[in-house]
Amino acid sequence: MNLHISCTDRTREALRRIADAGAEGARIFTRVYADSALTAAAAADARTAAGITLGPLDGRIVSIKDLLDVAGETTTAGSKVLRDAPPAAQDAVVVQRLRAAGAVIIGKTNMTEFAFSGIGINPHYGTPGNARDASRIPGGSSSGAGVALARGMCELAIGSDTGGSIRIPSAFNGLTGFKPTQARVSREGAFPLSFSLDTLGPLADDVADCARADAVLSGQPWQPLGQRRVAGLRVGVPRGLLFTQADAQVLAAFEAALSDLKAAQARVDDLALDELLGAPFRLQEKGTLIAAEAAHVHAALLAAGKDDELDALVLSRLRRGETIAAPHYVGVQQARAALLPRLDAALADYDILALPTVPVIAPTIASLDDEELFHRTNMLVLRNPSVFNFYDLPAVSLPLPRAPGEMPVGLMLVGQRNADRALLAVAAALEQFLQR
Amino acid sequence: MNLHISCTDRTREALRRIADAGAEGARIFTRVYADSALTAAAAADARTAAGITLGPLDGRIVSIKDLLDVAGETTTAGSKVLRDAPPAAQDAVVVQRLRAAGAVIIGKTNMTEFAFSGIGINPHYGTPGNARDASRIPGGSSSGAGVALARGMCELAIGSDTGGSIRIPSAFNGLTGFKPTQARVSREGAFPLSFSLDTLGPLADDVADCARADAVLSGQPWQPLGQRRVAGLRVGVPRGLLFTQADAQVLAAFEAALSDLKAAQARVDDLALDELLGAPFRLQEKGTLIAAEAAHVHAALLAAGKDDELDALVLSRLRRGETIAAPHYVGVQQARAALLPRLDAALADYDILALPTVPVIAPTIASLDDEELFHRTNMLVLRNPSVFNFYDLPAVSLPLPRAPGEMPVGLMLVGQRNADRALLAVAAALEQFLQR
Repeated sequence: MNLHISCTDRTREALRRIADAGAEGARIFTRVYADSALTAAAAADARTAAGITLGPLDGRIVSIKDLLDVAGETTTAGSKVLRDAPPAAQDAVVVQRLRAAGAVIIGKTNMTEFAFSGIGINPHYGTPGNARDASRIPGGSSSGAGVALARGMCELAIGSDTGGSIRIPSAFNGLTGFKPTQARVSREGAFPLSFSLDTLGPLADDVADCARADAVLSGQPWQPLGQRRVAGLRVGVPRGLLFTQADAQVLAAFEAALSDLKAAQARVDDLALDELLGAPFRLQEKGTLIAAEAAHVHAALLAAGKDDELDALVLSRLRRGETIAAPHYVGVQQARAALLPRLDAALADYDILALPTVPVIAPTIASLDDEELFHRTNMLVLRNPSVFNFYDLPAVSLPLPRAPGEMPVGLMLVGQRNADRALLAVAAALEQFLQR
Repeated sequence: MNLHISCTDRTREALRRIADAGAEGARIFTRVYADSALTAAAAADARTAAGITLGPLDGRIVSIKDLLDVAGETTTAGSKVLRDAPPAAQDAVVVQRLRAAGAVIIGKTNMTEFAFSGIGINPHYGTPGNARDASRIPGGSSSGAGVALARGMCELAIGSDTGGSIRIPSAFNGLTGFKPTQARVSREGAFPLSFSLDTLGPLADDVADCARADAVLSGQPWQPLGQRRVAGLRVGVPRGLLFTQADAQVLAAFEAALSDLKAAQARVDDLALDELLGAPFRLQEKGTLIAAEAAHVHAALLAAGKDDELDALVLSRLRRGETIAAPHYVGVQQARAALLPRLDAALADYDILALPTVPVIAPTIASLDDEELFHRTNMLVLRNPSVFNFYDLPAVSLPLPRAPGEMPVGLMLVGQRNADRALLAVAAALEQFLQR
């Protein structure tokens, strides 16, 4: 949207788009805050008229994922079964920060139940179609976030990312998504999936908006990103496991960008990191951190025997979590702690790792009716992003250039832990380079 | 020992006491470093002659618990089954620090197998008798540490404390023991029992020696402790659960000290903290953090079916750990994280909590032949100290005054997290007060 138009007019336009989408609008947004959004927009316009700003998100239209607490509302996290839970006593910390920064919160976006898959299918509230081709999956778990942004129903979308839930819908809908280092953004008031891996971050139209959202979400003073150049950039490409089972279109788009980078004097090295990048899968064969932690989060629900009220595809993964042995879980955590510094050391000489965010373009919704195929596709879609939740490294997904009519492909850039701003600065330089 | 005697003479005397104890010496020390101790002692004497000092432990005779790595030696952690494990590549960090500080490391002290009980019985290397009455248990798991120090075979003993393993042998043998806040002392190179709860610290003859050892173990520059006064000291007494099942002698010694403190104008308040102090037990009824983590540490051993080679009393607790479900473990960790700030808040107006370290005097070894009684006694002995591992608060055990012939009773002082030096300063003031 054009930021020279008043915030009120842009908010009205966003609300109109949601309304015009009819039933699909209700699959994208589980809740729309029309009145309070217009009130916030009017206040933002009044500040603009008075020459006052609350910072980089003042008057920006933001959606929030359905797992963020809003005071007085029940947080359903994409489920039916939580509808009778008590209302939240206060806004989630990131919602408090968004409001204090003058953002216009337009609504809550739909998601995979409990954020527990990368596909974005939701049998309770419906599955929003991919913004580029509605017969295809939106990507999850922040499904509504990606579709709402790509369809101009908001200007920024706040999602969560435990194994790719920001980056997958970004890649599938042609958006820019940013998953920070875990400790960077408070998760207080966000319904948990996995305490060890959950992160909160933005989906946006470009890296600059990701950086603006990052400043607000992390509570840091706003500073423009440093200027980085492609020439001399040190890029590692982790060939191997994370490049298998890939669509030809994805590989072609990735290799074209890579060869442009080399031509522009970036130093691009192939890296053999499969021992480290494959470790999260090998270690967690007998059960994942996510499944064990989610089974704790939902222990009362699982004990109550409300299986019929849950998405069967989510339920089966929760039930699997119940069977994991504590010594195995402890072993994964210990091995993880020992592995982190090893990958850090392997990345020391690189500004970024570059790889496809997801090895495939968004599959069709119809193709995932088969449960076994659903689980296999879910694992494939989560594969690349989830490695960097395990290693707690910040990552951006950028849309790669594509021909008209082609489905979007995401380029994942992985930075160093706690160097989130440095990663965003590199991502901004690459974004500009790819758009030449 | 008299520190005006040369380090070499004191080391010879310590070695003579170990040798003179015969078979009991070999139950107290699993390894004696006679040659290297005398070499280190000679070097310390040479430094003294030259007017050089390496700090507060220079030339002090120190024993180390059998779970600390010494380069080139297999760390057996009180077990037979680890005898064929590969030797340690380097000294544990605390051993490195002790050597660099000029300490004379005289030997490795016996312990409960894998540090997994508070009693101190060891069927593989024998059970050292209590230094005050050899028919009684030494307390564990740092059993040899307490007996060696109380019998003058070293001047300081380094132990580990996961649920009381420094404080229990201190209380039972009439010594002063200090368990720091977990993060204060590196555990690198210490054979683990529980990653979440393990700590390393000293047993000593007085608080000043604990403070000297703390400076070296934590890698902090040496500073004498601040002077604290009893008048105006704010003491909380957590009446209730942790005062149940107590011996009359223990209660009498504790109450006598308390009434002296009141008479000396300390502000002594009874506190009703049972909801918080009982939480670790309620939460862990379906399995403890220690058992789950120990079952991971020893997973290969448990899978190898070497049950016959293990202490049956340790094995049964490890096997129990194998059955704990990961979601339960995750739930305990989450609940713990939420409880810590609640107890912190309840202690905000107090310098220390004061309570009996252990509610009973050391029972006789013979009385624990019965397995059910062993487990019950073990739980009782660990009960009070373990609460403050769960809450990660520093704690000191001081010997209470006693009549000739009476068994020792320990007074536990609990401080605030990361305020380890403040706790030691208060403990030094109370020690002086109690010895009037």
